[in-house]
Amino acid sequence: MKLILKLSGKIFDEEDPQKLLTLKEVVKELVNEGNRVGIVTGGGSTARKYISLARKMGSNEAYLDLLGIWASRLNAYLVVFSLNDLAYMKVPESLEDFIQAWSYGKVVVTGGFQPGQSTAAVSALVAEASNADLLIIATNVDGVYDRDPRIYKDARLLTKINTEKLKEILEGTQSVKAGTYELLDPMAIKIVERSKIKVIVMNYNKLGKLKDIIAGKEISTLVEPE
Amino acid sequence: MKLILKLSGKIFDEEDPQKLLTLKEVVKELVNEGNRVGIVTGGGSTARKYISLARKMGSNEAYLDLLGIWASRLNAYLVVFSLNDLAYMKVPESLEDFIQAWSYGKVVVTGGFQPGQSTAAVSALVAEASNADLLIIATNVDGVYDRDPRIYKDARLLTKINTEKLKEILEGTQSVKAGTYELLDPMAIKIVERSKIKVIVMNYNKLGKLKDIIAGKEISTLVEPE
Amino acid sequence: MKLILKLSGKIFDEEDPQKLLTLKEVVKELVNEGNRVGIVTGGGSTARKYISLARKMGSNEAYLDLLGIWASRLNAYLVVFSLNDLAYMKVPESLEDFIQAWSYGKVVVTGGFQPGQSTAAVSALVAEASNADLLIIATNVDGVYDRDPRIYKDARLLTKINTEKLKEILEGTQSVKAGTYELLDPMAIKIVERSKIKVIVMNYNKLGKLKDIIAGKEISTLVEPE
Amino acid sequence: MKLILKLSGKIFDEEDPQKLLTLKEVVKELVNEGNRVGIVTGGGSTARKYISLARKMGSNEAYLDLLGIWASRLNAYLVVFSLNDLAYMKVPESLEDFIQAWSYGKVVVTGGFQPGQSTAAVSALVAEASNADLLIIATNVDGVYDRDPRIYKDARLLTKINTEKLKEILEGTQSVKAGTYELLDPMAIKIVERSKIKVIVMNYNKLGKLKDIIAGKEISTLVEPE
Amino acid sequence: MKLILKLSGKIFDEEDPQKLLTLKEVVKELVNEGNRVGIVTGGGSTARKYISLARKMGSNEAYLDLLGIWASRLNAYLVVFSLNDLAYMKVPESLEDFIQAWSYGKVVVTGGFQPGQSTAAVSALVAEASNADLLIIATNVDGVYDRDPRIYKDARLLTKINTEKLKEILEGTQSVKAGTYELLDPMAIKIVERSKIKVIVMNYNKLGKLKDIIAGKEISTLVEPE
Amino acid sequence: MKLILKLSGKIFDEEDPQKLLTLKEVVKELVNEGNRVGIVTGGGSTARKYISLARKMGSNEAYLDLLGIWASRLNAYLVVFSLNDLAYMKVPESLEDFIQAWSYGKVVVTGGFQPGQSTAAVSALVAEASNADLLIIATNVDGVYDRDPRIYKDARLLTKINTEKLKEILEGTQSVKAGTYELLDPMAIKIVERSKIKVIVMNYNKLGKLKDIIAGKEISTLVEPE
Repeated sequence: MKLILKLSGKIFDEEDPQKLLTLKEVVKELVNEGNRVGIVTGGGSTARKYISLARKMGSNEAYLDLLGIWASRLNAYLVVFSLNDLAYMKVPESLEDFIQAWSYGKVVVTGGFQPGQSTAAVSALVAEASNADLLIIATNVDGVYDRDPRIYKDARLLTKINTEKLKEILEGTQSVKAGTYELLDPMAIKIVERSKIKVIVMNYNKLGKLKDIIAGKEISTLVEPE
Repeated sequence: MKLILKLSGKIFDEEDPQKLLTLKEVVKELVNEGNRVGIVTGGGSTARKYISLARKMGSNEAYLDLLGIWASRLNAYLVVFSLNDLAYMKVPESLEDFIQAWSYGKVVVTGGFQPGQSTAAVSALVAEASNADLLIIATNVDGVYDRDPRIYKDARLLTKINTEKLKEILEGTQSVKAGTYELLDPMAIKIVERSKIKVIVMNYNKLGKLKDIIAGKEISTLVEPE
Repeated sequence: MKLILKLSGKIFDEEDPQKLLTLKEVVKELVNEGNRVGIVTGGGSTARKYISLARKMGSNEAYLDLLGIWASRLNAYLVVFSLNDLAYMKVPESLEDFIQAWSYGKVVVTGGFQPGQSTAAVSALVAEASNADLLIIATNVDGVYDRDPRIYKDARLLTKINTEKLKEILEGTQSVKAGTYELLDPMAIKIVERSKIKVIVMNYNKLGKLKDIIAGKEISTLVEPE
Repeated sequence: MKLILKLSGKIFDEEDPQKLLTLKEVVKELVNEGNRVGIVTGGGSTARKYISLARKMGSNEAYLDLLGIWASRLNAYLVVFSLNDLAYMKVPESLEDFIQAWSYGKVVVTGGFQPGQSTAAVSALVAEASNADLLIIATNVDGVYDRDPRIYKDARLLTKINTEKLKEILEGTQSVKAGTYELLDPMAIKIVERSKIKVIVMNYNKLGKLKDIIAGKEISTLVEPE
Repeated sequence: MKLILKLSGKIFDEEDPQKLLTLKEVVKELVNEGNRVGIVTGGGSTARKYISLARKMGSNEAYLDLLGIWASRLNAYLVVFSLNDLAYMKVPESLEDFIQAWSYGKVVVTGGFQPGQSTAAVSALVAEASNADLLIIATNVDGVYDRDPRIYKDARLLTKINTEKLKEILEGTQSVKAGTYELLDPMAIKIVERSKIKVIVMNYNKLGKLKDIIAGKEISTLVEPE
Repeated sequence: MKLILKLSGKIFDEEDPQKLLTLKEVVKELVNEGNRVGIVTGGGSTARKYISLARKMGSNEAYLDLLGIWASRLNAYLVVFSLNDLAYMKVPESLEDFIQAWSYGKVVVTGGFQPGQSTAAVSALVAEASNADLLIIATNVDGVYDRDPRIYKDARLLTKINTEKLKEILEGTQSVKAGTYELLDPMAIKIVERSKIKVIVMNYNKLGKLKDIIAGKEISTLVEPE
């Protein structure tokens, strides 16, 4: 099985070595069982810090995005160095780099690729180019809810939806406050749909149970491409 | 003045050296007058030929896009070699490559960057990163029409619209037949809007009058970011 | 066994996915049996189209050759993407790149390397650097004839010749019309002779019988280095 | 005049856009007056955060240093993007990269180069390779003191010392607590001595007065190579 | 077992193919037994020739060091080409290059990395980054002596010392004549100490008995990090 | 005026800094007068030493050539570092690298490019790609003689010949002893002829009079493409 795991930048903000060691263990186990694993890291608070500083200095949007990308690559190197021998030791800087890196058979860890595109879009591109069976989005909530769970007490987790439905929910949410609800953006959804990639949205605090989640035994949301 | 010129792949399909020599002349003149010029080339029929062949062989969507990108780079090298001393002699393969190339002061010519994104989106990214004053989309029609001019005899050319209006038109057109009406895609529009980039849509058969078009003296469509 | 397969650009001009799928099958089989395979692709009609256009625009010979090389690389990517996991995912751009790529153990596909040299010469260089046991030239005729088979009805296919004899024939043919009879050029022959590389000239329409040809059971020409 | 400016990572920790805009202004002015400027950035708290996290996960010392280096490169990109057209748009990753970048005539900004070596050593190497007239170490104190000014109230700033004297002071200080007093390490001093590079240690809060400091009109320490 | 072997440039000065073939045999045997091997080559007389010539022409110290580094890379390529399939076919030019090269599982051969640092320091860095069990320094004497064996007849070989003791001896020797007694320099010792790397100093004329030396059955010096 | 200067490797074998300083002076003068200069360096005795050693170890011909190429690059770096600010600070490793390097406006120095081809062929390729007005071959004789001047006392220097005549002479000479009379090989002549490049063969001991030689006032041989 080939799977791409997208890690929210928030997991790095917690500065909790235990969570990253859990990640390492689960990746090691997956690899030992014969699976191929790719990882995409978000930029988190490091990205926000540098973007905010540069914005005050008047940088253009492309440069701001590039700072966020370099921050996400720093997170990627943190994962690379923790995986050590399991990992391809360089963080690819474009999809073409990724494709070449992937062909060596190791775990490939990548941050962002280019301005104007989220790391979620990167993870969808990477899943498509590697013919992945599954794209896993690990974030700080348990899955996709019918409304924003941070606002509505009665928000309900959806265990299975299709991309059409996801777009509806995201558009609703985004109209509330742009950028605060990170999941799949339009480009990511376009890729997922055109290549029929199955997506699971899960909580990164449950990475230790990743295999149960893949098997459908633990809470998460399965997003099916329309 | 800094301007980015996006050339439809169709101009290469015509195999007409005169059109490319006209391009060379107008670029030379612009550079001699102190302007900076960047060029983005589409893939045209060469791209379609390779994509079609690979699709029949079962390639994934990312690989198909990459073949189209390599074809667009071949078109870019054709322009580079015709510009000779005016040009940066390597075709950048990512936005980061472009930014570095651009800083040397030469005309930079680029094809596509990455799967899942049109060369129109590339031209918007390149315009943003180079702080361009103007993005010129040179295609095989005179500008943006209120409906598809190849279907409707009474289609009317719009001399000035905003991006909101453009989106409406494009959505209408695309619902007719996806991919046949190439202009700005959603990602390109997002970039153009967030960085307030002025866009002109013009006919590449009028490249010899580019300066008149920029001055608003020749027919074309000015698209203003909303 | 290590073998280098040189594919005439004409196989790509036919736009026949079946021929390339046959190539894929035979390469897969060879690899599964423990052989190492390298592939060199010619530029074909795509190369000729771009060269012709640039020539009319006044490009120098080095630039014309480079356009041909970039076209041959586009053909190489088509093969790379069809081979997918079997292949090294980047087309090497020099012999040093090739040597590095080759050491990873995958099928390496390359187009041209540099101006002033044919892809046949590239295939000889690649065969030498990889210590190949065999260089196979797959073209649109069944082998080497004693005279040009397209002109002389009674041309006779030679099943075995040495490089001295080959040079005589090629010089005779080339004096008729330069460039129309593509096989081994002087540089390729020099390499083949200095490193004693065995060469087979065969028809690419018989790629499905490649193993029989190697075993000497199917029609082709064996060229032995003098 | 050619000068290399080493910025302590602490200037980035302050997240004060004004300080970096002052840097930009002074660099611009120096460049406009015909000087060449190179900048080396430390890693600061971003480096410490990632190193600390990786250390808890058991990374080896080389990897820890590399995380610090990548953090310093992120600081370097922040400076690059603020300088925009003045700067070479890529952060060099080795001294050989730097030498090539430097030859284009732009301001070159670099972070760390390799494990086992401080960014102070990098700045000395860069000063040597660029035949710099002056190496400026901008840190969070006004210069070199005869004892650690954070401990001893009566510490006295030295306006002029030689490298022999500097080594004595640093050895004394380092015996108190390694790593807390960042200036020139042994490798940096070795380079400075062998190439007779003049060094000024100054406070980065006085970057706006850099020209006065170079002229000896503002407080700082001049370190002369022995 | 992972081991890094540092070859003095003097072994190349002897122009004795037999010594390099012995090296090849012992590396092959080590690899076949499941060990990982990295090799670092000094520059030898080729380095000295180019440095001397450039010094007379007035090059700066950084450029002189770079010529020595390029000479050491030439020695490295000689080893790479003799190892052929066993080796990674490119000589890394920085520690980051090395780390990536090392992850492919082949023998990696490297020369110098950067000015201001000896190839001994490179070998220590490489040992640290690859988590090596052992760093072997192969030179033209049998190990570390209590005084310079070329001056003092009664110099005694030390079979086991710690790095503190080594520093004392080297400082003593270096005060006699800088640069003539090549072993571990201060940077190399710093790395060896901070990462607790075990070092063996041996005679390259005994490479054929390398396994005995590692097992402690042949004469050499074991240096233990303090 | 654009000129490419090919330096025989023998000039480096002499280890005479004065000759290289003369080279520097003449290049500086040419550049200051507005000319563009490219330099190609042979491998000389360093190349022969490494090739001979590797041949005894059984390397294949491609690897032997590569060692010669790396030796020629070492000579190229020696020239680069002596030219310092005048030069592009990296030695290109292929013609594509060269083309890019050349476009920056500095003096570009290159060694060999690829196995199977002499540095004379490299100089012809480089002259073609840069649209050079003149290719100067600086060797250890005063020009082309009607027979080998080292054998025949009465050999006569030819002040002007065409490439047809040159081929005759070289074939005659080469039949005596291959490889001892280095000038233009068949590939170099092919390039020179197809792009009508004027060639001057001169003695590198007269580099100080290069401008007189170009003006036809000093002894040398002008080779005109047929």
